[in-house]
Amino acid sequence: MCGSDTHYYDHGRIGSYVVREPLVLGHEASGVIEEVGAGVNPARVGQRVSIEPGVPCRRCRQCLAGRYNLCPDVRFHATPPIDGSLAELIVVSSTFAHPVPDSVSDEAAALLEPLSVGIWACRKGGVGIDRRVLITGAGPIGLVALQVARAAGAEELIVCDLNDDRLAAATDLGATRTINTGDLDGEDALARKLTGSDPGTAPPDVLLECTGHAGLTRQALTTLAPAASAVLVGMGGTDVTIPLSVLQEREITITGTFRYANTWPTAIALAASGRVALERLVTSRHPLADTATALTASRSDPRNIKALVQPQL
Amino acid sequence: MCGSDTHYYDHGRIGSYVVREPLVLGHEASGVIEEVGAGVNPARVGQRVSIEPGVPCRRCRQCLAGRYNLCPDVRFHATPPIDGSLAELIVVSSTFAHPVPDSVSDEAAALLEPLSVGIWACRKGGVGIDRRVLITGAGPIGLVALQVARAAGAEELIVCDLNDDRLAAATDLGATRTINTGDLDGEDALARKLTGSDPGTAPPDVLLECTGHAGLTRQALTTLAPAASAVLVGMGGTDVTIPLSVLQEREITITGTFRYANTWPTAIALAASGRVALERLVTSRHPLADTATALTASRSDPRNIKALVQPQL
Amino acid sequence: MCGSDTHYYDHGRIGSYVVREPLVLGHEASGVIEEVGAGVNPARVGQRVSIEPGVPCRRCRQCLAGRYNLCPDVRFHATPPIDGSLAELIVVSSTFAHPVPDSVSDEAAALLEPLSVGIWACRKGGVGIDRRVLITGAGPIGLVALQVARAAGAEELIVCDLNDDRLAAATDLGATRTINTGDLDGEDALARKLTGSDPGTAPPDVLLECTGHAGLTRQALTTLAPAASAVLVGMGGTDVTIPLSVLQEREITITGTFRYANTWPTAIALAASGRVALERLVTSRHPLADTATALTASRSDPRNIKALVQPQL
Amino acid sequence: MCGSDTHYYDHGRIGSYVVREPLVLGHEASGVIEEVGAGVNPARVGQRVSIEPGVPCRRCRQCLAGRYNLCPDVRFHATPPIDGSLAELIVVSSTFAHPVPDSVSDEAAALLEPLSVGIWACRKGGVGIDRRVLITGAGPIGLVALQVARAAGAEELIVCDLNDDRLAAATDLGATRTINTGDLDGEDALARKLTGSDPGTAPPDVLLECTGHAGLTRQALTTLAPAASAVLVGMGGTDVTIPLSVLQEREITITGTFRYANTWPTAIALAASGRVALERLVTSRHPLADTATALTASRSDPRNIKALVQPQL
Repeated sequence: MCGSDTHYYDHGRIGSYVVREPLVLGHEASGVIEEVGAGVNPARVGQRVSIEPGVPCRRCRQCLAGRYNLCPDVRFHATPPIDGSLAELIVVSSTFAHPVPDSVSDEAAALLEPLSVGIWACRKGGVGIDRRVLITGAGPIGLVALQVARAAGAEELIVCDLNDDRLAAATDLGATRTINTGDLDGEDALARKLTGSDPGTAPPDVLLECTGHAGLTRQALTTLAPAASAVLVGMGGTDVTIPLSVLQEREITITGTFRYANTWPTAIALAASGRVALERLVTSRHPLADTATALTASRSDPRNIKALVQPQL
Repeated sequence: MCGSDTHYYDHGRIGSYVVREPLVLGHEASGVIEEVGAGVNPARVGQRVSIEPGVPCRRCRQCLAGRYNLCPDVRFHATPPIDGSLAELIVVSSTFAHPVPDSVSDEAAALLEPLSVGIWACRKGGVGIDRRVLITGAGPIGLVALQVARAAGAEELIVCDLNDDRLAAATDLGATRTINTGDLDGEDALARKLTGSDPGTAPPDVLLECTGHAGLTRQALTTLAPAASAVLVGMGGTDVTIPLSVLQEREITITGTFRYANTWPTAIALAASGRVALERLVTSRHPLADTATALTASRSDPRNIKALVQPQL
Repeated sequence: MCGSDTHYYDHGRIGSYVVREPLVLGHEASGVIEEVGAGVNPARVGQRVSIEPGVPCRRCRQCLAGRYNLCPDVRFHATPPIDGSLAELIVVSSTFAHPVPDSVSDEAAALLEPLSVGIWACRKGGVGIDRRVLITGAGPIGLVALQVARAAGAEELIVCDLNDDRLAAATDLGATRTINTGDLDGEDALARKLTGSDPGTAPPDVLLECTGHAGLTRQALTTLAPAASAVLVGMGGTDVTIPLSVLQEREITITGTFRYANTWPTAIALAASGRVALERLVTSRHPLADTATALTASRSDPRNIKALVQPQL
Repeated sequence: MCGSDTHYYDHGRIGSYVVREPLVLGHEASGVIEEVGAGVNPARVGQRVSIEPGVPCRRCRQCLAGRYNLCPDVRFHATPPIDGSLAELIVVSSTFAHPVPDSVSDEAAALLEPLSVGIWACRKGGVGIDRRVLITGAGPIGLVALQVARAAGAEELIVCDLNDDRLAAATDLGATRTINTGDLDGEDALARKLTGSDPGTAPPDVLLECTGHAGLTRQALTTLAPAASAVLVGMGGTDVTIPLSVLQEREITITGTFRYANTWPTAIALAASGRVALERLVTSRHPLADTATALTASRSDPRNIKALVQPQL
């Protein structure tokens, strides 16, 4: 389950995407190939796969340029009117059903989708061994972004959230520092918290924003170092605002992300080698009949990170 | 003269930079070397030079990384408390006094500074032969950005301004299309103007924002193509705002610019070869005693693009 | 006609690509859509198109990443066993039949293919307004690379060839300097020619190698500036060799190119706007029945740049 | 001690750098500041520092662009005629004497220099979480490149060497696979070894060449994946050679490295956090009087990786 599934369930829409007829939810899935269509290698029957839930047109300029996440004609699971994966059997594109090795569990295989969001954020932000990374939000996306940034050897990994349990999970997954942002008082409150008592504290040079909260985003942007990159991943916010002088005097670069492209090979390798620990995100498991409970699990308790639905139960 | 000189003259400050004691204005200058200091090749006496007005520390992390424009200890002409160049004789760093060939006139040599702003904007925006460029603002900076983008072979060069005379100058300097933005009515007014009657019109993929006007910036950002880059050059604005969904769904990248770095060699080559026409920006010339008139020339008439002060008059 | 067509005609193979059964040659083509297949917009009938001659699989890792030129399963015109375009009617992929506007002539539309090779070379080399470019070879590829580099505003455009007529064509198309390399005497002969009598001559910082000649390539590589890029486009050579110390002390980057990807939109825009002059490459025109003459035209006289076959004659 | 020190000691020259008068060797050093010159903060006395051994001019185009390793006027320790650091007291530039925290030992601080070579190689090669890296050579440079690539989360780390002890050290430091290249028989021997019995083995997409051996370099280049990067770090070789068709058909990028730039902050952070284990490279320690033994240690036994000279002994 992803927050967007819950949002569709609760509100029947996300922005301009409106559910107008019955829609199967779910876009983070793994499974086993039961049958193949014409032109697909029959030897794939029985293969364990992780499902990349968006199938682009492969004809438009964006697709041909490798930016298939920006394809205007992409068909994406659980985005109206395309049905998702909360079912016992689904039809998927063979290209986007990625085989996984035995070292990737079924649960991890389903979670390669959110992992991909984290990989994409880190790619866009240029996360690597010489970067101090600030991650705002320790929900599922913040925690995968954290794991990818840690795998990429980031020098510092500072995670913010309102909830101490989530921050504890972040520490457990490799955060070098956590900050509770429940009491940000004043425009520069986060900056003051980051610096703390040591005025020589180096500011972050990458921001991975995973809350979608406009106020926190603005505060986080103004903490950044000269030449820093900010990647806005968290959805649901309205406007981004930032003081023009901050953007200019530090030549900060801001970009938004939309899903991901070309991430599965990396995601599989990360999971297979144990450089990320996806199962640790799973906080509850449910049979298919219990999907409604799974959908609302995190709403009822912020300690719930990821609810999984297992049709085989 | 630059708009920032006029702003200091009128208001005594620009943001947090406050004039607290008498300050010589001017940071766009050329001249002839009269004397050299210790350690400088004496053969340089008599050399015609263009002055790069910021001298960085050359020791900090930004300087060593080649981003010397972000040096926290840069000493920049006419930025308090550093005196500028509106004088008969000034002392400058030999490294930042760039020799110019005969094919670059004294006037062009002075204007390599604003040209550098345009070069930097085009570099940050990745302007090249496969880019459709939207330039907001046809003042001095918009017009140099235009010339650089044209030299770089941009596919389309759309220029916006409130003033038809300035738009005519833009056309004259290579704009492929101009739009008067005096009557933008509604959030998507600029987008509608860009598309016009042809719904197949390709949107711009680079924005060079040269007005600093928040409302126009927001409108311009929302016209951009997927994967576009926006470079915010125009100063004086307060907040940048953009709908988060636009930033994310199109994965637009926004960056601000602060002056420039490593642009003079390119600027000299552009001017020397005639790929830019800097003299066409000059709309009035004044003796040193008449500096006050030069400072206010463009305030009195928007058709005045660049006023030059010539101490030798 | 392209040199590779002639090579297949003469030798029946290019490297490991061997003609084992009758093969239609030709991979630089334009035409008019006569009929469309299922799923293609019928309104395209009558459309003038330029043919991109390689159709990739669109499923492999290279294709999805936007590097479809490296697709191992690409089907490319006139590469055995795929037939080419020297015919009155051919079947092509609708995605790779690019509509051209009226401002692009039929001849120019056919020549967007070699133009794409030049665009790709310039992209790989980072050609732009601040680059001094050395182009070795003034055959069809050298001359399109030259035109693209000129459109991209390169600071200097030095072209080398053995043939003075070709060098004259280069000058005509924008070369800022030409060098006859017929008499290179000694390992550093080209470097000495480039410097000439002025020891302060700045070395090139981009090499577009369009001959495939190993000896010239080596000489050209050793003329480059620190941090320069070299793009090896010319085919037919065996080994590239370069002194390791030159590669290291100057941190030169070398890459080879294989065809192109995502170039047609740029090629169309360049041709439509007159930023390149493709028709000037055409030195002879032939009816389809006369293909053999067209294939051997440049072999008989190096002044022949491009022979066109016009099935409508 | 570095191999280049030993080479000067044995041969009196490295390529065009010739020792013409007595020269103090050594360019990998740490120490404590005893005195500061004019203009340097006196509070630095007593500071533990790691010495970056090259001091560039900070005026030339390369320096200003951040590529100070390519400065033609750099003064580099133990490169004739500049004395090196094998002494009790040396004078160094304050900018290039980098303070280290307590968590970086004196030995690690000295080894930030070779670590920088590894950081630079990984930066040039774009090593990150989605890269399979082939490292040729498990000497000191190969082993630091390995450690940096491991810190950067590389997917695979394959190390080649002639010596099994060195390969064991590589395994110990994180290599995911090692190959003894003592018996490469035929042009594609290394490629065959890499593939082994599994034809589906994915080829490496980054090569960090740390031997300088021309034959091995050529074999390693031909094993690479499409769009791969090769970084040639190992010195002492003469020509690099590679089949042109391999370079072109796979669009491989090759670059050489010369020292490093802007690596110390990253090196300090890597060492301070334990993401690299530099002390494990040290195989012997010697008093200053015993420098000759230290210089020849690795010559006598390939198991000797790094000999340290400790003037305080």
